[in-house]
Formats: sequence, C-alpha cells, structure tokens
Amino acid sequence: MREKDRRDEMQRTSHLEDLTARLIAFRDARDWRQFHSLKDLILSLNLEASELLELTQWKSAAVVEEAARQDTDFKARLGEECADVFLYLLLVAERAGLDLAEVAGAKITANEIKYPVEKARGNARKYTEL
Amino acid sequence: MREKDRRDEMQRTSHLEDLTARLIAFRDARDWRQFHSLKDLILSLNLEASELLELTQWKSAAVVEEAARQDTDFKARLGEECADVFLYLLLVAERAGLDLAEVAGAKITANEIKYPVEKARGNARKYTEL
Amino acid sequence: MREKDRRDEMQRTSHLEDLTARLIAFRDARDWRQFHSLKDLILSLNLEASELLELTQWKSAAVVEEAARQDTDFKARLGEECADVFLYLLLVAERAGLDLAEVAGAKITANEIKYPVEKARGNARKYTEL
Amino acid sequence: MREKDRRDEMQRTSHLEDLTARLIAFRDARDWRQFHSLKDLILSLNLEASELLELTQWKSAAVVEEAARQDTDFKARLGEECADVFLYLLLVAERAGLDLAEVAGAKITANEIKYPVEKARGNARKYTEL
Repeated sequence: MREKDRRDEMQRTSHLEDLTARLIAFRDARDWRQFHSLKDLILSLNLEASELLELTQWKSAAVVEEAARQDTDFKARLGEECADVFLYLLLVAERAGLDLAEVAGAKITANEIKYPVEKARGNARKYTEL
Repeated sequence: MREKDRRDEMQRTSHLEDLTARLIAFRDARDWRQFHSLKDLILSLNLEASELLELTQWKSAAVVEEAARQDTDFKARLGEECADVFLYLLLVAERAGLDLAEVAGAKITANEIKYPVEKARGNARKYTEL
Repeated sequence: MREKDRRDEMQRTSHLEDLTARLIAFRDARDWRQFHSLKDLILSLNLEASELLELTQWKSAAVVEEAARQDTDFKARLGEECADVFLYLLLVAERAGLDLAEVAGAKITANEIKYPVEKARGNARKYTEL
Repeated sequence: MREKDRRDEMQRTSHLEDLTARLIAFRDARDWRQFHSLKDLILSLNLEASELLELTQWKSAAVVEEAARQDTDFKARLGEECADVFLYLLLVAERAGLDLAEVAGAKITANEIKYPVEKARGNARKYTEL
C-alpha cells in the first residue's frame, strides 16, 4: 500500500462517523433498533464497563499495568472489553443525537479552564476534584 | 468557511487520534500521568458510566427517550456524561497501548459472523445473547 | 420442630452477626483474608451489583416485575445475585469495622427527617432527590 | 440499660426483618412504592455501589485501608454509602419476594462445596474463580 493510501485507510477507520455508520448498518440489517431504548443502551454500557473492571479484580494496580504490557491474552481481553464499551457509547450517542467528538472536545476545553496549568500542575488535590 | 475547510475541520475533530492527542497534552501539561494507573482509569470509567446511568433513574424508557429529544437541559447533561465516559475510555486505551478504532472494528466484524443476518433478523432471543 | 425452635432458628439465620460469622469462618478456613483488600472488596461488590443489573437488560420494568413473580428460574437467579451482593457487603463492612445494621438504621432516621411525610407523600419530585 | 435489654436491643436492630419493616414503613408513609419498580431499584442499587466505589478512586489499596482505620470522616462516608447499598438491597429483596438471609446462607453453603478447604486454602488461583 502506498503511504498516502495507508494514511487514508487509517483516517477512515479511526473516524467516529465511519465506525458509527458501520455499527448502525450492522444493527439495521438485523432489525435490532426496536430493542435499543436509550435507557437500555446506557444500562448495557454500564454492564460492559463492569466487565472491563472485572479484568482488574484481585490485581494490584502494578499487576494490572504489567499484565497490559506483557500478557498477550490479558491485552486481547482488555481490547475486547474496551471495544464493547466503545460500541455501546457510539449507539448511545447515535440514539441521543449527540456528536461524541463535539461533546468530548467541549469537555476538554471546559477542563482546560477549570484546571489552569499553573495551579493544577502535579497537584493531586486539585486532580481529585476533576 | 469554505466547504473543503469545513470538511477538514470535521475530520480533525472526529478523529480519535486527534482527540487523544489533545487529551494527552492536557494531562501532561498538568503532570497528571503519575495519578493515572490503568486500574484507576478503568475504575473512573465505571464511575462516569454510572453518572450517565443516573440520568435514567426513576424514569421509564419512554420518558428517557422523550427527554433526550425535547429537554435541552437533559440532553446537555447526557452529552457531558457521554463525554466523560469517552475521555476516560481514550485514556484507558492510550495507557494500555490499544487502538480503539481497530479493536472496535474487529468487534463489529466478529459480531457480523456471530449473528448472521438471516438468523438474527428481528430476533430478540438471539439478540439477548449478544 | 416446635414453634419456639422454629422462631429461634429464623432469628439465627436472619441475624447479620451470624451471617457475618459464618462468612468469616468460610474465608479464614481458606486463608483468603490476604486477598481481600477493602478496595477490591468494594470493587467486587460493584461487579456483583452489575450482574444483578444484567438480569434486567433488554427487559422493560413490567417484564422484570412479571418474571420475578412467575419465572422460577429468573427468581432463582435474582436470589443468587442478591446473595452475592449481600455477602460482599458483609465482607466490606467487616473489613471496614462497620456495623451495617447501625449505619442502615441511622440512614433511615436521617431520611425520616430529610423527607417529612407531609411534604414527601406521593411526591416524585422530592423523591428523585432522595 | 441492663445487659439483657441491651442484648435484645442489638438483636432487634441487626435483624433483617426489622430493618426491612422500618424501611417499608418509611416508604409506605410517603406513598413511594409506586416509584419503586424492581428494575429501577436494582439500577439504584448499582448507583449506590458506584458511590461507594468512588470513595476508593485515585487511592491505592493500602491508602484505602489506612483511611478506613484512621480517617473518621472517611469512615463515616464509607458507613453512609454502605447503608445506601444495604437499604436498596433490602428494597430489592422485598419487592422480589426474596428472603435475603436464606439466599445468602444457601450461597455460603454452595461455596463451601465449590471450594473445599483442602484445595482452596491460601490458593489465589482457585480464589479468583470464586
């Protein structure tokens, strides 16, 4: 693949709109929209977040970190659970008519104002109020 | 703004890499990486998912749906909580060295095989095993 | 069993101290206390709460209610997940040196003051601030 | 208070039936049963479990342990969040017609069989399958 094509391909796949479009096509081909109330999508997002959390159960923070670096199977499961959270988040946003990139960008901007660099730098106390 | 510029702008903001880059710059300017163990990032993602869920507490599925369409304040809060979940998901992925778009794309492909259209179409039973 | 014995038996089993004593004996016979940090016990309680929530996924409130009344298998699973939440709650309380009955009683008392009957009666708005 | 009275008092308050009776009286005096679908009670239990988890956010396991022992304010907040989880668990059980003490006792018995002392003793591997 030429460098330019490879870059275009990457852009395509890391684009929220494209992922959402694929996901909605998947859903609609199976006629599953009828089951997807916004409340149940949000509930499902929570269940997937919990499965991600389960991967850290009975492991210290250091052990989790090491497993993510060195244990291929653990990293694959992390990837799968992150994917599940992400897909439900895209479905929630689509259902609620939200532009995820926009609200996330706005949130970073708000946090930049809320936590000025000079005050927040290396400051755990401020940090815990994030 | 010219049409082409507007399109470029949209691409920039809905691009996972760009959002992640902004978020990491925000984090590093404040020297906060030291607080961000993978275990605590995943735990924090769960807390934000729960705040999103709280917006649906004591509301029927129909009321949630209607509020998302007609209640500007409710929709703004939905947007903020979705943003918080999304930002922590980006931090988790960055910390774990995961490419979110890649794992999400792979998961859709896996689900396309797991739930063939002809069998899954409009089928809630199959669906609940998703 | 005589009526008095039956009553004593009931008292014994529904007593928090007795349940906790049985649970701690179970844990200590297996030398598992070493794995039970308070943080991981609380995390585990969340995972079990999530498994309970999963039983309601893709079901309307009315369907959940009906299943709890009429579906023996569903009710058994509800019982198991509630038991898991309860057992972790007892372990959390034991580890943190908390008297669950005392803090729960104090919370009811606080709520009785916070939500006076005359103002709160049938009032969903007040209620949602509970 | 005489020793016997004190003991009776303790029995009364640590009894699940009595706590449930107080809680139901509280609920019914405010005519709140109408808001308490089983699905929303279970959802609310999850929200409270999450508030308990939030107390451990950005704290290592050791710091959480120490705070529970030495920080009076932290311990009070632990107590409040545990109480909230407990009260919703009692409401869930009452609504679902479950005897919490019974299902919890049965679960301990099942775990005693599932994890025989000789095999499970000090064994984290077995443990993580609990």
